[in-house]
Amino acid sequence: MEAPGEAEAHGGRREGLRCRHPVAEMLDLPFLPFCIFLGGLGFMCVAFVSAWCQHWRGGFALDGGLQMFNWHPVLMVTGMVVLYGAAALVYRLPPAWSGPKLPWKVLHGALTLAAFSLAVLGLVAVFRFHNNHGTPNMYSLHSWLGLATVLLFSCQWLAGFSAFLLPWAPAWLRALYKPVHVFFGSTILMLSVASCVSGINEKLFFSLRNRTTDYKYLPAEAVFANTLGLLIILFGVLVLGALARPSWKRPDADSPDSRQPLLTAER
Amino acid sequence: MEAPGEAEAHGGRREGLRCRHPVAEMLDLPFLPFCIFLGGLGFMCVAFVSAWCQHWRGGFALDGGLQMFNWHPVLMVTGMVVLYGAAALVYRLPPAWSGPKLPWKVLHGALTLAAFSLAVLGLVAVFRFHNNHGTPNMYSLHSWLGLATVLLFSCQWLAGFSAFLLPWAPAWLRALYKPVHVFFGSTILMLSVASCVSGINEKLFFSLRNRTTDYKYLPAEAVFANTLGLLIILFGVLVLGALARPSWKRPDADSPDSRQPLLTAER
Repeated sequence: MEAPGEAEAHGGRREGLRCRHPVAEMLDLPFLPFCIFLGGLGFMCVAFVSAWCQHWRGGFALDGGLQMFNWHPVLMVTGMVVLYGAAALVYRLPPAWSGPKLPWKVLHGALTLAAFSLAVLGLVAVFRFHNNHGTPNMYSLHSWLGLATVLLFSCQWLAGFSAFLLPWAPAWLRALYKPVHVFFGSTILMLSVASCVSGINEKLFFSLRNRTTDYKYLPAEAVFANTLGLLIILFGVLVLGALARPSWKRPDADSPDSRQPLLTAER
Repeated sequence: MEAPGEAEAHGGRREGLRCRHPVAEMLDLPFLPFCIFLGGLGFMCVAFVSAWCQHWRGGFALDGGLQMFNWHPVLMVTGMVVLYGAAALVYRLPPAWSGPKLPWKVLHGALTLAAFSLAVLGLVAVFRFHNNHGTPNMYSLHSWLGLATVLLFSCQWLAGFSAFLLPWAPAWLRALYKPVHVFFGSTILMLSVASCVSGINEKLFFSLRNRTTDYKYLPAEAVFANTLGLLIILFGVLVLGALARPSWKRPDADSPDSRQPLLTAER
């Protein structure tokens, strides 16, 4: 939580100007402890998906077999959910609130590019596995949604790079595109989470078919992977909540290259 | 789009006070045509899920058999997505912007209650089908997520009713709870969409197992139901986009019973 003095140091744009109800003040959540909790949750998502594939699904390999498929869930969860969520929250870090914005833009761009690269490798893993086994690609709703999400992410990255990192986009275009970029940023995370949930569900129906370990008898693997699904959902919801929280947003008014699309009469 | 005169009639709180870039002005989307499009999309979701169950899954009955199960997807999509989305957008209707808020609150509460009732009937349909066939309930990730979403919805409805419709909640509590209610409102819609996607995916893997009509050969039913999944996602994303759009929000400053939690110094 910010002390009043710190709020003034950030230009006194929000907190310094407001009177809040004492109960609201009491319940106010500080960003950094939340961030540490979220980091732990993201680590748990990666640990759970890795442990599921290692312990129950036979581990990892690059031979085009089932062990190659196992890279798919690990890379998708790590890239499209955890790393993507971290990249989305870069501008919420208090050090990003003051000073030049460019280093934070570069960090955001680099993290999203890393997330995108993991997603592409995750797609390679599942396509090579399918091709090696003569299984058709792109028939399930999970695959349609997943590929659409990665394609949308590629458009989002290219448009963001062109508008915010290359120098020639005019300020009015940046201001016009920014809310669109922010909206699709959250949308892509939602679609990623929905893809992960449908993918885990599908994989468990595929894998747990034995008489004693059928999915419907809820063996240990099913409980573990269902829990992974819930952790991913919780992570996604918390990132979206953090992004929507007004008091954690970087006050943009002073930033010369990210003027708001609406210029209020008070200025 | 509003003419300047109309904006002034709404108190000139937002549009009347702002200078916008001509391109932003040109691209500005009016709410009512969007609403009509969204209504058509919602109708298509209900029509697609009904046609899927009627044409490919054997139609509807109340006998506890497969035809009883078919009520589950129809009621869930109609209640938890389409009706829920309509209820969420009540306060964005221009007539809701002025005058007393109570009738709109009652409409919002009634629509969400109708959505919740359909969801409960949808759960009854699937539980009765499972019980009649000796199939365990609540083992798949889809079922965990779906039930959690409906339970969260019940808490949200009760808390919203107690805080905003019953007369004894103090104004500061309403103001404190409002952003929480708004956030969980969007979250429940996201979770509903994710539940629908995983449910359609699961149902297609269950149903399309014949040699010629296996899901992986993408028969007509698979294309149709996958398209239904994409329509549901598009509907959900558009509702969330409409909710997030600042210029479509009801200017709340004048509403005596919904004061903002943060009182800015300008007022």
